[in-house]
Amino acid sequence: MGEEVTISNKQVILKHYVSGYPKESDMELKNSTIKLNVPEGSNVVILKNLYLSCDPYMRGRMKKTEGSYIDSFIPGSPITGFGVAKVLESGDSNFQKGDLVWGMTGWEEYSIVTPTQNNLFKINDKDVPLSYYTGILGMPGMTAYVGFYEICSPKKGETVFVSAASGAVGQLVGQFAKMLGCYVVGSAGSKEKVDLLKSKFGFDEAFNYKEEHDLDAALKRYFPDGIDIYFENVGGKMLDAVLLNMKLHGRIAACGMISQYNLELTEGVHNLFYLISKRIRMEGFIIFDYFHLYSKYLEMIIPKIKSGNVVYVEDVVEGLENAPTALVGLFSGRNIGKQVVMVSRE
Amino acid sequence: MGEEVTISNKQVILKHYVSGYPKESDMELKNSTIKLNVPEGSNVVILKNLYLSCDPYMRGRMKKTEGSYIDSFIPGSPITGFGVAKVLESGDSNFQKGDLVWGMTGWEEYSIVTPTQNNLFKINDKDVPLSYYTGILGMPGMTAYVGFYEICSPKKGETVFVSAASGAVGQLVGQFAKMLGCYVVGSAGSKEKVDLLKSKFGFDEAFNYKEEHDLDAALKRYFPDGIDIYFENVGGKMLDAVLLNMKLHGRIAACGMISQYNLELTEGVHNLFYLISKRIRMEGFIIFDYFHLYSKYLEMIIPKIKSGNVVYVEDVVEGLENAPTALVGLFSGRNIGKQVVMVSRE
Repeated sequence: MGEEVTISNKQVILKHYVSGYPKESDMELKNSTIKLNVPEGSNVVILKNLYLSCDPYMRGRMKKTEGSYIDSFIPGSPITGFGVAKVLESGDSNFQKGDLVWGMTGWEEYSIVTPTQNNLFKINDKDVPLSYYTGILGMPGMTAYVGFYEICSPKKGETVFVSAASGAVGQLVGQFAKMLGCYVVGSAGSKEKVDLLKSKFGFDEAFNYKEEHDLDAALKRYFPDGIDIYFENVGGKMLDAVLLNMKLHGRIAACGMISQYNLELTEGVHNLFYLISKRIRMEGFIIFDYFHLYSKYLEMIIPKIKSGNVVYVEDVVEGLENAPTALVGLFSGRNIGKQVVMVSRE
Repeated sequence: MGEEVTISNKQVILKHYVSGYPKESDMELKNSTIKLNVPEGSNVVILKNLYLSCDPYMRGRMKKTEGSYIDSFIPGSPITGFGVAKVLESGDSNFQKGDLVWGMTGWEEYSIVTPTQNNLFKINDKDVPLSYYTGILGMPGMTAYVGFYEICSPKKGETVFVSAASGAVGQLVGQFAKMLGCYVVGSAGSKEKVDLLKSKFGFDEAFNYKEEHDLDAALKRYFPDGIDIYFENVGGKMLDAVLLNMKLHGRIAACGMISQYNLELTEGVHNLFYLISKRIRMEGFIIFDYFHLYSKYLEMIIPKIKSGNVVYVEDVVEGLENAPTALVGLFSGRNIGKQVVMVSRE
C-alpha cells in the first residue's frame, strides 16, 4: 500500500444541534488533514469525493434523535450524506483503486468509509452524468420508484397528486405516473417550478401552493373527481387538504414531510377521519429497506435516460465551501430540481 | 296479502342536526301509525323491530354531511341503524313471514324496508342470543374480524394495542388477538371496564386512559419494546401517543375515532412523521365493503361462542323510550360492552 501520504482535507462541520430553520452559521468549514493509506488488514476504502447530495431527510440528523432510522450527525464532526466518489485506495476486494462509487460519504474532500456500513455501490454505467448517482440514479430515484410502484399500487388512468413536485423525488414520480397513463398534478413553490413541471416533466397541471389561499379549493379545481394517489413530500396543511379530496380506496405514500422539519411543534393534522370514511391506505417507507431492487431499477431507468424519455433537472453548486448554503436552501425551496454540490471534477 | 291493518308505531325522531355532544333532547319520541301490509307488487318487507344497535358511527349521521360513506339522518324522521327484527309481511321472495333478520332498520316499533338497500340478512342460527346479531354476530363482530385479520396482517407473538377495548368491537379484537398468540393491551375509561378486559376478555394488560396524565408513558409501561399493531377506535391524543410507540413496520387499522366525533374542530395529530421513520401502514376501512366475508365469519365465530371460547358483553336497555339515553351514553362511555336497545321480546 505504499508510502504514507497525509494531505489537507477541507470539511463541513456541524457546529451544534439545530433548532428551527438551519442556518449556514450552524456549519463551518475546517481545514483538516487525512492519511490516504489503508491500514494493514483494514477493509476501509479511501474516497475522493466528487459530488455531494443535499436531501431534506438530513434536517432530522441535525438534531438529537434517538431510535430514528438514521443516526444524528455528530456536532464537531463532518456532515455525512449520499455522494459520488472515486476510490483512491481500497481494503475491500469488491472495490478497486479508480472505481467510481456512490453511497454514504462525508462532506469533505476525502473520506474513509467502510463499504458495507456506508451502502457503497460501484458505478458501472458512466455514460450518464456522474452527478445523477446522487439523484435519479441514487437514493432519490429509488425513492420515487419504490414509493410510486411499490407503495402507491398505481393503475392506468388514476389521478395522482405530487407535492414538492419539482424536487429530487417529485419530478420523477410525476414522470413515472405519466408513463403509466395517469393524470398527474404537482405543487411547487414558485412560478418557475410550476412552469418546469408542465413544460419539462409533462405534468398535466401544476400550481404554486404559495399563491393558493385555500389549498382545498386548489385541489378541487384540478381534481374535481378526487385523488386516487397522493405522493406525500410535505405534510401539514397540504396533507389536511389532500385528505378532503381523496377518492374512496385512495393511497398515500408518505415519503417526507418537509414543511414540518423545522418546526418545534409540528402542525396538527385534523382530517384523519377521512382515512376511515374513504378507506384510505397511508403508508410510510424508507428507501434503505428497498436497495435490493436497485439493479432492477437501473435496468428500467438507464435506457429511459439515454433515450430522453425520462429527464432530470439538477441544481449544481460548485465547491464544498458552498455546501452549507445549498443545504440550507432546501428548506426555503431555493433549489430548482435536485440539489447537488460538486466538490471536484473527477 | 289480506286485510289492510294500521296500528300505532312509536318512533325515535331526530329533531335537528346536532353540533357538539348529542343530547337526549336532540331526539324525541313520536306516536305514529303504520300500515302493516305490503302493497301489491312491492318488494318491501315489514319488520317488527326486536333489538336496536347503538353505534358510534351514528354520530356522523346526526350532522349534515355530503359524500360520506353513509347518508345523514333526516331531521323529523326516525333514526335508522342496525337491528334485529321479525318479518311480519314480505314482498321479497328471499324473506318469509316469521323469519328473523338483521340489517338496517328504523328506531321504531315497526319498519318498512327494502332488503337489498338495507343489507338485510336472514338469521339462521337462533341457538345464540338474538341480540348478538347487533354485536358479535352483526356489524361490530364483522368489523373486529375484518379489521384485525384483513387490515392488521397480524402474526403470532406480535404486540397489539386496542383502544375503546371493552366496546362492541374492541372486546372482540382483544380476544381474536389472544387466540392468535399475540400480547394484547387495552385501554378503557373506567376501573370496571379495565377489570373486565383482564378478567373476562383475557387481555394481558389494561389501563384506564382517564387516569393517565401521560399516555406516552402509559404505553411505554405496557409496551417497552413497542407496538406492532394498533386497532384504532378513538383518534386524537391517543393516536399521537401510539405513533411514538409503534415498532418498525407496524400497522394501524383505523376503525373509528370516537374521541373526535363531538368536537367542532378535531384535535390535530402531530406525530405523523413516525409513519415514515417507522414505515407504518395506517389503513382505514368500512365494514360495508366486506359483507361478502360474513358467512365465513359466522362459520368461525358461532362454534367459538357456543364453546365459550369467545365471550361477548352487552349492555341492554329495555324499551324504545330509553334508546336516546342509550345512544347519547356511548359518547360519555356510560355503556359497558355493546350497547343494545330491546324494543320487544320476540
